[in-house]
Amino acid sequence: MTATPGGQITLNELPLRDNLRGKSPYGAPQLDVPVQLNTNENPHPPSQALIDDVAESVRAVAAQMHRYPDRDAVALRADLAQYLSAATGVGLKTENVWVANGSNEILQQLLQAFGGPGRTAMGFVPSYSMHPIIADGTDTTWLAAKRAADFSLDIDYALGEIARLAPDVVFLTSPNNPTGASIPNGDLAALVDAAPGIVIVDEAYAEFSDQPSAAELIDRYPAKVVVSRTMSKAFAFAGGRLGYLAAAPAVVDALLLVRLPYHLSVQTQAAARAALRHRAETLAGVARIVAERDRVVARLGELGYDVAPSDANFVLFGDFADPAASWQRYLDDGVLIRDPGITGRLRVTIGLDTENDAFLRVSEKLAPTDLVRL
Amino acid sequence: MTATPGGQITLNELPLRDNLRGKSPYGAPQLDVPVQLNTNENPHPPSQALIDDVAESVRAVAAQMHRYPDRDAVALRADLAQYLSAATGVGLKTENVWVANGSNEILQQLLQAFGGPGRTAMGFVPSYSMHPIIADGTDTTWLAAKRAADFSLDIDYALGEIARLAPDVVFLTSPNNPTGASIPNGDLAALVDAAPGIVIVDEAYAEFSDQPSAAELIDRYPAKVVVSRTMSKAFAFAGGRLGYLAAAPAVVDALLLVRLPYHLSVQTQAAARAALRHRAETLAGVARIVAERDRVVARLGELGYDVAPSDANFVLFGDFADPAASWQRYLDDGVLIRDPGITGRLRVTIGLDTENDAFLRVSEKLAPTDLVRL
Repeated sequence: MTATPGGQITLNELPLRDNLRGKSPYGAPQLDVPVQLNTNENPHPPSQALIDDVAESVRAVAAQMHRYPDRDAVALRADLAQYLSAATGVGLKTENVWVANGSNEILQQLLQAFGGPGRTAMGFVPSYSMHPIIADGTDTTWLAAKRAADFSLDIDYALGEIARLAPDVVFLTSPNNPTGASIPNGDLAALVDAAPGIVIVDEAYAEFSDQPSAAELIDRYPAKVVVSRTMSKAFAFAGGRLGYLAAAPAVVDALLLVRLPYHLSVQTQAAARAALRHRAETLAGVARIVAERDRVVARLGELGYDVAPSDANFVLFGDFADPAASWQRYLDDGVLIRDPGITGRLRVTIGLDTENDAFLRVSEKLAPTDLVRL
Repeated sequence: MTATPGGQITLNELPLRDNLRGKSPYGAPQLDVPVQLNTNENPHPPSQALIDDVAESVRAVAAQMHRYPDRDAVALRADLAQYLSAATGVGLKTENVWVANGSNEILQQLLQAFGGPGRTAMGFVPSYSMHPIIADGTDTTWLAAKRAADFSLDIDYALGEIARLAPDVVFLTSPNNPTGASIPNGDLAALVDAAPGIVIVDEAYAEFSDQPSAAELIDRYPAKVVVSRTMSKAFAFAGGRLGYLAAAPAVVDALLLVRLPYHLSVQTQAAARAALRHRAETLAGVARIVAERDRVVARLGELGYDVAPSDANFVLFGDFADPAASWQRYLDDGVLIRDPGITGRLRVTIGLDTENDAFLRVSEKLAPTDLVRL
């Protein structure tokens, strides 16, 4: 057994940037537990037909793996434009779409182009926890505005904060993670109208919602509206890492200045195109998840939980006296859910019927003991 | 035919960051030409056995594609540690290795952790053109020091510039792209000794060189030395996008603070592991490339070209009266090479024997007309 080279020093002895000192890496625990309902994954595994298509599509491109990929991923962007046009009713073209390794990379590129030192990004918290982390990673000053006590967006307050602080970038998450509700489209237009700069509408969970997409606003506000999406959720492609956006072509031109060349591998481009070919089948699963969500929400309500309305594939619920302790009790019974760090609340992803049953059984057990009774 | 949503505005009308205004996207032309010798790819296509292993490895992980990947890519890092230990003679462990989508992403993460606003990064130009671009993308101030007229690193001058400007990060590229020579290991240690901060030794082309790896210096300078590598070149995996680094475990801890969670897809982790399993076969091709490089260098010399010594899979040569015009003449004859923007010089990647023959035939034709005669 030899020593690890360089093992004698610690993180504190490195010349780390000041804004990173004392921070911990992002991340939900990756635990090997029977029922995993903590990262808003789609519980339906890919069909054998999709698995085969992914494997054979990768086999086809692997023969040219010694060559760099198409830097601009044109074929994949064309496929996504076609899907998104059908899904939103907006006639999006290839040049309206950009792709990256997960929507996190999309968001990072947006802040590299439109945020950065001396600029600000505003979000309405609680929301997707990566927004402030990516702001930090790009040295964009984060402005945390609030949501109402029921986690909705108070439109007058939001308009006031945008007017007061004039952020270069505004994040609007719809449906909002981890709370679940969408922003009504009229409110969205009012917020975009008020924003002085870029508005990123994070629609990671859009396929679970009946709300119209903010893509409808791109043509009206071409210098402002960017719609960020992901294949991780509805497309059951979390492992494949494919995020994308829809915006004016000029926004895509801007991202070409900051994207790392050849950022998207041939196997990711091929696998994502395969997943898109099987979308009828995959998205049929979304309806099953929505039905299960409504069942879980109803049952939690019967059990005395306070449940936030959800347009997504997860539910925020409480009111727990000690959420961290209750989170552990779920885990002790083999059900991994998420503690989002919101007073009194936990978040559960909607899983397969049997997984939701397992979650509800623990919830039945905990309701009499763990909830705050008002 | 409907209009493109948002097509009415241009890049100039967007609130782009000032340091990006007027810039053009990075990129060698991606042209469909018979002989492509412009991006330092490995010309040997993957064997059928490797293609099959990639496809079947991806098939195996595709069954779980609805789940997020291992965020820390531990199995792949273990495989790379094993390879790199054998290649360098340094007993590297999993915790010494970090991975990303190409070495560009590795370098970006390093500058996010150790560079950024108010900090500086020094390079010795001409060198890899992405270094200043990534510095720009992370708002790290770029300090361009020079190489000698023969493109070697003048060690006294380099030590002087490091002492004078005290850069937070120093880039040393060995072998250097696009000029070809390695930095002797004694010089490397002297430069590291003098540097006040992080020294990134970019060894993208190390497998083509007989020089020892800077990995030997990690244990002596754990808070300084980071060795960046890629599978794009010797491993013939440019399309697979796998960059990695070797450093003290604390450096990897630092990158966990800035990496985007789940940055590396299941299919990339699986494909890269397959490529590593076939390394005996792939790396055997490296010896053929080195032999061809020496043949090309010798022949160019006979033809009257001035050729920079190369430790890599490319050759910088001249002295052209008008490199852009000569670059076009190669292209007109079906041979795509690189114009790196260095006075009088062009760069050719070493290809298959027949491709090198095609390149040399054009070179024979151009020598009498296109060279500066001293």
